[in-house]
Amino acid sequence: MAVIVPFESRSPATIDRLSELVAADMERVNTTILSRTGSQVAMIPEVANHLISSGGKRLRPMLTLAMARLAGYAGAGHVKLAAAVEFMHTATLLHDDVVDESEMRRGKLAARMLWGNEASVLVGDFLLGQAFKMMVEVASLRALEILSSAAAVIAEGEVMQLGAAKNTATTEDDYLAVIRAKTAELFAAACEVGPALASRPKDEQNACRSFGMNLGIAFQLVDDALDYGGKAAKLGKNTGDDFREGKITLPVVLSFRRGSESERAFWRRTLEEGDATDADLEYAISLMMKHRALEDTIQRARHYGAIATDALAVLRKLPGCRLARMSGSGATCFGLFDSSRATAAAARTLRVGYPAWWARATVLGG
Amino acid sequence: MAVIVPFESRSPATIDRLSELVAADMERVNTTILSRTGSQVAMIPEVANHLISSGGKRLRPMLTLAMARLAGYAGAGHVKLAAAVEFMHTATLLHDDVVDESEMRRGKLAARMLWGNEASVLVGDFLLGQAFKMMVEVASLRALEILSSAAAVIAEGEVMQLGAAKNTATTEDDYLAVIRAKTAELFAAACEVGPALASRPKDEQNACRSFGMNLGIAFQLVDDALDYGGKAAKLGKNTGDDFREGKITLPVVLSFRRGSESERAFWRRTLEEGDATDADLEYAISLMMKHRALEDTIQRARHYGAIATDALAVLRKLPGCRLARMSGSGATCFGLFDSSRATAAAARTLRVGYPAWWARATVLGG
Repeated sequence: MAVIVPFESRSPATIDRLSELVAADMERVNTTILSRTGSQVAMIPEVANHLISSGGKRLRPMLTLAMARLAGYAGAGHVKLAAAVEFMHTATLLHDDVVDESEMRRGKLAARMLWGNEASVLVGDFLLGQAFKMMVEVASLRALEILSSAAAVIAEGEVMQLGAAKNTATTEDDYLAVIRAKTAELFAAACEVGPALASRPKDEQNACRSFGMNLGIAFQLVDDALDYGGKAAKLGKNTGDDFREGKITLPVVLSFRRGSESERAFWRRTLEEGDATDADLEYAISLMMKHRALEDTIQRARHYGAIATDALAVLRKLPGCRLARMSGSGATCFGLFDSSRATAAAARTLRVGYPAWWARATVLGG
Repeated sequence: MAVIVPFESRSPATIDRLSELVAADMERVNTTILSRTGSQVAMIPEVANHLISSGGKRLRPMLTLAMARLAGYAGAGHVKLAAAVEFMHTATLLHDDVVDESEMRRGKLAARMLWGNEASVLVGDFLLGQAFKMMVEVASLRALEILSSAAAVIAEGEVMQLGAAKNTATTEDDYLAVIRAKTAELFAAACEVGPALASRPKDEQNACRSFGMNLGIAFQLVDDALDYGGKAAKLGKNTGDDFREGKITLPVVLSFRRGSESERAFWRRTLEEGDATDADLEYAISLMMKHRALEDTIQRARHYGAIATDALAVLRKLPGCRLARMSGSGATCFGLFDSSRATAAAARTLRVGYPAWWARATVLGG
């Protein structure tokens, strides 16, 4: 379960490899998730499972499981921690959709459209409570410390974004601070709790945290690019959601900075004043193409992917590295974005063919 | 710090006695609260302190402090736990105001009216995260277990109330289940963590939990009655808020069950269909007077207050009982509702003078 996939690798960069490695544990996580969303209050499992069963990749809990194995952890606590991580993520999505007034989530109606904002807020709170209960049951104070800190940082990041949203003057650094907190922190915590649970040395915990943090940043940046290039049906989100919601993401930050005065006026009108039509979205994408903003967003993602890969070098000595040998070439891949139809479709939408930079972006750290 | 105030007691039933006993610790809690709402994200301390500094009684953290002392706890962890309890409470209020679309809270505009629903949801999440961080720092797994369970139960209770709201068929038992979860559980947890932190025997932890649970039920019932009898300026909430929001509380449950068919039609129209005017509120109060619904709500509160008092009998042997002796008569009071102007005004509003039953209600367990 080491991580290096050379850029020229012929092995496909998909999440399948990771899924296979943790499949048995993941079964147990899924059972735990199901039992812990149970409640006599019928609305709770309905709302929770609407979202949890809607085909999320469960990437974060997979990372927790993989890192725990990599660290040679032999107990059962990683299953509950992985479920807790997924609950924290789900709670955040429920609350995000209320805050952003989103109508869709993963290609389905958002929970708030079916059960209302009230239920989304409160079921989110319930899942957070259940997450902490599970963590406490695992009884690792270090794991509790990592995940409770993450919960506070994530919420802080969300509030930060409230301020940054709709402000085209946002710098790339501002934006990175937001996604570090609101996305990457949970990836970092999900990766850090494994070695923490196994009582591995601090430098190994830090390495795993660093891997997760940088992977999370890369993940979010690719997501930002896909929002302007994906297809709703394939990706479970609507192309242009971020644009319509006035969200300032890196493709916008780059296009705004590289644009002319009249282009900046366009961004201000559409994003700050919320006056955006479908034609505006088309024009926004054309500006991004003109300024290579999507390409460079992916380029930035590759940078963080590379840092993530290097972070794991220290882990070669870890017990779980025998898993890497088992998995074939001695080098396994934490590929995150499958190079399958969804991405190809996104590339076509962008009318850039299916260029090398896009394919490479699908191999994180590639 | 024992608890019995005989009904005929001449000592005033106020929260002042409790406040005095924990004053020094409470200073430290206030300092902790201030430092833990700090953030580089300026909106966080603004929103949090708007509510936290708005003159809440800080009853829950006081109970945590008092119980920790009663249990002879000599460490410093109770301060952080008390602050965590207040943060949990504050987070719930922020989310509640969003869910209920409340405009006022403690006589001020609700945070959502000033910073929006988004900020209220997210700052609530931040405070929950900070609460868990503080608990983890105290490093008592038992305390963590108690408070994380409470967080899940509280959220479950809130969702349960979503279902019960606006349903006049709610039974008294249904209603009790809701307030047990959404109000009394935090009182119970706040009281239980003190002896848990001091590693006192399980029966003592249970006794403190039972005290808190029943006190919490009594507290909520008195609050329900005050909503139809209080004065906005004095109590920091608007008289009739519950009515206007279509909340089914015990005074309504009793009036509905005891009412005629036409009266029931009135409750259905005003609460279920949300068609309530100021004149309707007047009429609602008159129906409550007719059916002695407020009086009996207070009577129910006294019942739970009595259970709370009895729960503490087992605690006479506790180390902290010397505090009770210090405090004077050998019997101190956890009086919760001051018999001051606010209550007198409420009684006048109810046009029942300032009768014995109301005064008694101000002495819980009296």
